[in-house]
Amino acid sequence: MAIITLTTDFGLKDHFVGVLKGSIYSELPDAKIVDISHNVAPFNIQECAYILKNSYNSFPKGSIHIVGVDSEATQENQHIAILINGHYFISANTGVIGLITSEVKPEKIVEIKIPDPLHGSFPVLSVFVQVACHIARGGTLEVVGKPFNELKDLREFMPRIVDDGKKIIGSVIYIDNYGNVVTNIQKHLFEAYRKGRDFELLVRNHKIKKIHKAYNDIIDYSVEKSKRKGDGDLLALFNSSEYIELAIYKSNLKTVGGAATLLGLDYRDTIIIDFL
Amino acid sequence: MAIITLTTDFGLKDHFVGVLKGSIYSELPDAKIVDISHNVAPFNIQECAYILKNSYNSFPKGSIHIVGVDSEATQENQHIAILINGHYFISANTGVIGLITSEVKPEKIVEIKIPDPLHGSFPVLSVFVQVACHIARGGTLEVVGKPFNELKDLREFMPRIVDDGKKIIGSVIYIDNYGNVVTNIQKHLFEAYRKGRDFELLVRNHKIKKIHKAYNDIIDYSVEKSKRKGDGDLLALFNSSEYIELAIYKSNLKTVGGAATLLGLDYRDTIIIDFL
Amino acid sequence: MAIITLTTDFGLKDHFVGVLKGSIYSELPDAKIVDISHNVAPFNIQECAYILKNSYNSFPKGSIHIVGVDSEATQENQHIAILINGHYFISANTGVIGLITSEVKPEKIVEIKIPDPLHGSFPVLSVFVQVACHIARGGTLEVVGKPFNELKDLREFMPRIVDDGKKIIGSVIYIDNYGNVVTNIQKHLFEAYRKGRDFELLVRNHKIKKIHKAYNDIIDYSVEKSKRKGDGDLLALFNSSEYIELAIYKSNLKTVGGAATLLGLDYRDTIIIDFL
Repeated sequence: MAIITLTTDFGLKDHFVGVLKGSIYSELPDAKIVDISHNVAPFNIQECAYILKNSYNSFPKGSIHIVGVDSEATQENQHIAILINGHYFISANTGVIGLITSEVKPEKIVEIKIPDPLHGSFPVLSVFVQVACHIARGGTLEVVGKPFNELKDLREFMPRIVDDGKKIIGSVIYIDNYGNVVTNIQKHLFEAYRKGRDFELLVRNHKIKKIHKAYNDIIDYSVEKSKRKGDGDLLALFNSSEYIELAIYKSNLKTVGGAATLLGLDYRDTIIIDFL
Repeated sequence: MAIITLTTDFGLKDHFVGVLKGSIYSELPDAKIVDISHNVAPFNIQECAYILKNSYNSFPKGSIHIVGVDSEATQENQHIAILINGHYFISANTGVIGLITSEVKPEKIVEIKIPDPLHGSFPVLSVFVQVACHIARGGTLEVVGKPFNELKDLREFMPRIVDDGKKIIGSVIYIDNYGNVVTNIQKHLFEAYRKGRDFELLVRNHKIKKIHKAYNDIIDYSVEKSKRKGDGDLLALFNSSEYIELAIYKSNLKTVGGAATLLGLDYRDTIIIDFL
Repeated sequence: MAIITLTTDFGLKDHFVGVLKGSIYSELPDAKIVDISHNVAPFNIQECAYILKNSYNSFPKGSIHIVGVDSEATQENQHIAILINGHYFISANTGVIGLITSEVKPEKIVEIKIPDPLHGSFPVLSVFVQVACHIARGGTLEVVGKPFNELKDLREFMPRIVDDGKKIIGSVIYIDNYGNVVTNIQKHLFEAYRKGRDFELLVRNHKIKKIHKAYNDIIDYSVEKSKRKGDGDLLALFNSSEYIELAIYKSNLKTVGGAATLLGLDYRDTIIIDFL
């Protein structure tokens, strides 16, 4: 039985997530349902795109991913089902799959055309769950929709390259549970333009000259413990999803705050890399 | 194997939910446990009642619902197990099932009488889990309790009809993850008294003359995009549970806030419907 | 198939938890994964230790507990796997198992020595998941590590006994979802030194002379309802984990606050017990 994942902005207090699970189990008693996140900020397609991009591929091929963020069908945001890299996504056409499709070409896209008896305010239940169960039972996309070729992307996620490749202008695309600031600059892009040169990462009034591989790389164990750099220091690293991230090592969010608050950074703020 | 659902005010940080799941799996290795919510506000029976009412029926008949809100047994709040509409509920007698019993008559109610070796501060573990596992193994309610007929209800949830049916005085019973305000006025009640008349929904200093079926019904796609109503506008709709709800279309909770904060509405505040 | 539990400070918004589950299911399609908590405060070993100590033993023997708090391996915090009381723990050597090992001697401890192809910032994924799946498939600890005998403990968790056993000086080790304040004084320690004497529990400017067994023990049902003690009153009790806890009966966290805010107590603050 395929895995069905849920990524939504429903939160974990209301009855919505319970309703989805109850409905899926009612149709498929042996379903395996996995929560990816229900705490996407309401209607925040960018956050959801980042979470999906960094998690879907950990699941086995054939998994079915329900995306419940801004999921009402409108004339401009059709309900779609997509097969990409062996994974199924069921979503409104909001661009939320854009981070994935920027790297992998979809194998199949359909606009969902099933009778929606409710036509109401909870399409994840009345439409997406039906499509997911259909796929989980081995059904094809063709049965639930017709071919579609107007998939939206998420252009704002792309960093800009200027000055003949001497400068990358990126921006903040995600702030994680630790207050760490994730930029839209991926390692392979950075290395492609770096070509072995030195660089400066500029953010607010900070200049950073090194990008680490792990958080604790900042610690020099040859230095006596009380004199070491470490807790509370700013570092840049390639995070586990291979994006450049700014972090405060073991920052206490309740007292001093994380990188986002300490640097005063929010979504869409600018980070610059200068190759020297 | 029956599904066992959990609806509690335990939150998701403490060890309580883990303990419940570990204990159930220790007794029933093949149990299917589903979280409905652990984020009910502490001791808030009304919130819990609304969540239960809107989710239980999505699960297959025979499901067992553990209710862990205000669950200590007192002389006035007995531990009870109820069979209603094919579903089992295990709870303290707080009225939390009242929204369900106002629509469906219980098939069976017992006051739980099992030895509680702990008699302590965690009855959901020491009592409810035992009863749930007993039922999941096919046991009957008669074995764990004796007939009971003092089930509490939740009268405050009912709207009042005044002026010979010309006016419905309702109140706020729930505020959801988007800041949407749910009233206690259900569609069937509204339609029964409306009898085709025009109406005004009065809330604070707003008059609303239409109740929508979906959030995006507020958008008129024949109007040019930049001039459309939409994001940030107030609307009333019948929500997916068929209650009248007040919402701000795609409101950003972090900046402008949701309907609850923008209208200054909280639990128990009044909403009036005038039939003209 | 053994149960794999997760206790982390990853939070429930980011993709991290989804990635772990997807990775485990990719290796072990029949795995049973249970979340204990993902809301441990970032890097808070003490909170995590309390949650683990009070939940692990509810799970069946043979369960595998992944601990994802401060999990980067450093020269001082090695990656370790421990068999204790029939349960497996996979963690960094931070002392987080210290509350358990203070009561039960580990059967086996190894320092994990598996190739980590990523050596990156997400060791719970690149190392712990591999070890957990190895154990779940019936593998031994010897295969993934070498014997280790430098397990850290958590000394600060221990109360001090002074004045020839006439006084116990304890401290706050946990604040739960209700704002209840948990001290590090366990019932068996309290009784061992009490020897039947009267006592005073001193906290801020309060003196408490009774420790209850259940929250509602504070209510005297022989008193008329409107004159009873109850909601809003301070009490001490042995909580379900047998620690002394300070609670405000049915306190509303949104309005008056819980015991922690009302008493102005935070982690590490002092509580004294005087035997008279």
